Amino acid sequence: MISPHSDEYFMKKAYAEAQKALEAGEVPVGAVVVAKNQVIARAHNLTELLTDVTAHAETQAITSASSYLGGKYLKGCSLYVTLEPCVMCAGALYWSQIDKVVFGAKDEERGAGRYTGIYHPKTKVISGIMEKECRDLIKTFFESKRK
Amino acid sequence: MISPHSDEYFMKKAYAEAQKALEAGEVPVGAVVVAKNQVIARAHNLTELLTDVTAHAETQAITSASSYLGGKYLKGCSLYVTLEPCVMCAGALYWSQIDKVVFGAKDEERGAGRYTGIYHPKTKVISGIMEKECRDLIKTFFESKRK
Repeated sequence: MISPHSDEYFMKKAYAEAQKALEAGEVPVGAVVVAKNQVIARAHNLTELLTDVTAHAETQAITSASSYLGGKYLKGCSLYVTLEPCVMCAGALYWSQIDKVVFGAKDEERGAGRYTGIYHPKTKVISGIMEKECRDLIKTFFESKRK
Repeated sequence: MISPHSDEYFMKKAYAEAQKALEAGEVPVGAVVVAKNQVIARAHNLTELLTDVTAHAETQAITSASSYLGGKYLKGCSLYVTLEPCVMCAGALYWSQIDKVVFGAKDEERGAGRYTGIYHPKTKVISGIMEKECRDLIKTFFESKRK
């Protein structure tokens, strides 16, 4: 059993969002923002539907969480995302001053982890939660595209 | 006289957007996207009005240009922006595969130029167009905030 409010518990919520993206033919990445152990925003990649490269799960989750909170800073919040944030999303997370970023699968090619100092110095970054499941979802998507 | 369709000509359009931001109490940064010598999108910073850290001039201009073109890639386009793009915006420009980015004032503290390899390898980056005017606008804003 997964203990409630653990990183794995919230990553499962992000994973459910990624599955929705997969069903919609989008690159399967999902994200949730959590404040006081409550999910306050959920989003998945919508770059195809919106024909907009900026519509990543993370940027949308940030916008949605800020709207919910009525303020642009996400201090006291955590973002859970199935794939390592890219440079754009890590840059957005920098501006949000979010407390914690938790990601599932690493993105060796496009992940912000290729650079140092992109995240806000106050932001704690945790990786590898449900790594295999998150990576498999992406793999399944790209394999199906190649067929 | 400024020759039409020069970098300075389009930077003046971006500068006019930045002035609108200043009048609205936003950090004065403006951007336009140009395709075939025509402005197809214009935007300015709206982080305060939208309470959203992702609402930079560049991200909004990208979204708007993609909407105009009906496609998510900005190949064949140029973005003019009064201040050097931050990491988030340079990351967004990466995904857009835009041909050219022209900025006015350098941002030593937050600009993407602190890192190498953030922009798309196909993207040409030009700086220093109307540098003084663009920098002065930002300076005026922050000095008025300090009062």
